[in-house]
Amino acid sequence: MNCFERALGGHFYAVGVGPGSPDLLTVRAVSIVRTARVIVAPRSENSAESLALSVVRPLLDDQEIVEQVYPMARDQARTFDCWNQMAHTVARRCEVGDSVAHLTIGDPLIYSTGSYLLQCLADRLAPECIHVVPGIGAFQASAAILGEPLTLQDDRLMLVPATHIEDVERALDSCETLVIYKIGSRLPAIADLLARRGLLDRARMVSYAEQPGKEAVVTHLASAAAGYMSTIIVRTRHRKWSPAE
Amino acid sequence: MNCFERALGGHFYAVGVGPGSPDLLTVRAVSIVRTARVIVAPRSENSAESLALSVVRPLLDDQEIVEQVYPMARDQARTFDCWNQMAHTVARRCEVGDSVAHLTIGDPLIYSTGSYLLQCLADRLAPECIHVVPGIGAFQASAAILGEPLTLQDDRLMLVPATHIEDVERALDSCETLVIYKIGSRLPAIADLLARRGLLDRARMVSYAEQPGKEAVVTHLASAAAGYMSTIIVRTRHRKWSPAE
Repeated sequence: MNCFERALGGHFYAVGVGPGSPDLLTVRAVSIVRTARVIVAPRSENSAESLALSVVRPLLDDQEIVEQVYPMARDQARTFDCWNQMAHTVARRCEVGDSVAHLTIGDPLIYSTGSYLLQCLADRLAPECIHVVPGIGAFQASAAILGEPLTLQDDRLMLVPATHIEDVERALDSCETLVIYKIGSRLPAIADLLARRGLLDRARMVSYAEQPGKEAVVTHLASAAAGYMSTIIVRTRHRKWSPAE
Repeated sequence: MNCFERALGGHFYAVGVGPGSPDLLTVRAVSIVRTARVIVAPRSENSAESLALSVVRPLLDDQEIVEQVYPMARDQARTFDCWNQMAHTVARRCEVGDSVAHLTIGDPLIYSTGSYLLQCLADRLAPECIHVVPGIGAFQASAAILGEPLTLQDDRLMLVPATHIEDVERALDSCETLVIYKIGSRLPAIADLLARRGLLDRARMVSYAEQPGKEAVVTHLASAAAGYMSTIIVRTRHRKWSPAE
């Protein structure tokens, strides 16, 4: 049986649920969420509810919901301790024949807490029982809202977190399109950098992309408030085709 | 009315249909393809049929199919001439009240022929009548098959075409995870480069990701045949968390 037609007993699925709008789940993600026995919904310790869970709410029936509160601190030991515990729980449920789906906003392999769970599960479950269902990332949703190509022809695309400003600056020289993630309180520093490099009018920010009622497009970064769940896209330059080697 | 619940008359939709498996369309893409009056299906002049069209075949009923044969040559003038003609056709159909969906394998804004159509439509249709539905890219499908994180913590992700080997080499120094697209006949040159940099065992190639019956994972790049529709993922290194500034 195809392991994606419905969630199989004894199998684990890392499911990307997309940026926030329920119709941006893939058909495969819908099938798995609908048929899994156990749904693991991550919630950061700073949030009142799991955003990923709210996205799939219309698909839930009698699935068992396990909430997973994870630390937001940049603390390797605490993070892995938390995910190791969850991996233990997941493996136990799979051993007794349950199917388990772990929800992730966006794609499970791009800056996602779900990656830790996958790592911690690797020595507890057989590889053929571990599956990843890709999801639409915030950068794709943001680009779709802006309606502009991310890459054409020989363009290079780069995704960097806003955490280290020198990384962002180096990245500006290494690609034609730069996606900056995890903006938050780093917005003024990013806006300063882009202004200094003459790129402020080539940058746009999308906040809460595809989250109904919250989505906002910011064209003037210098005067914007800091944005949690924001993505900045900078089109640094455009390359034309050059002859292939 | 929500412009994504069903395809609206007079509106154009650039729709990403994902890498090949029909269940990797988003729910939104399914709605638009099902309800559009006209479906534009791109086919390269080297192919017998449109892959994008074959992916949505189960969703088709009485939609009108317009096949768009596009040049594969790196020829700016011919490419734009072709897409300008299609933009003219699309705009005319929208003017008489039809809804038009243009299909794209993967995501419409990542190395996609659909980007040219969007550019050519910009001065023919009002912006509020042009929509982009994001799709799962081949790099996401490939990473999901490999089951390994693309980015964690402060990692930088980069997408480059294999066209210029010096771009690929520079990119190896600029990110933690490198995705190399458009492999084709460039595979031996890429394998040579990775061997020279000691990264051959950190690279894997997925060919025809999520295309039923054709998908293949290649772990030994040096001995592989050239791959059309292949993606190489190189995990150059892993950064641990360092203190935020």
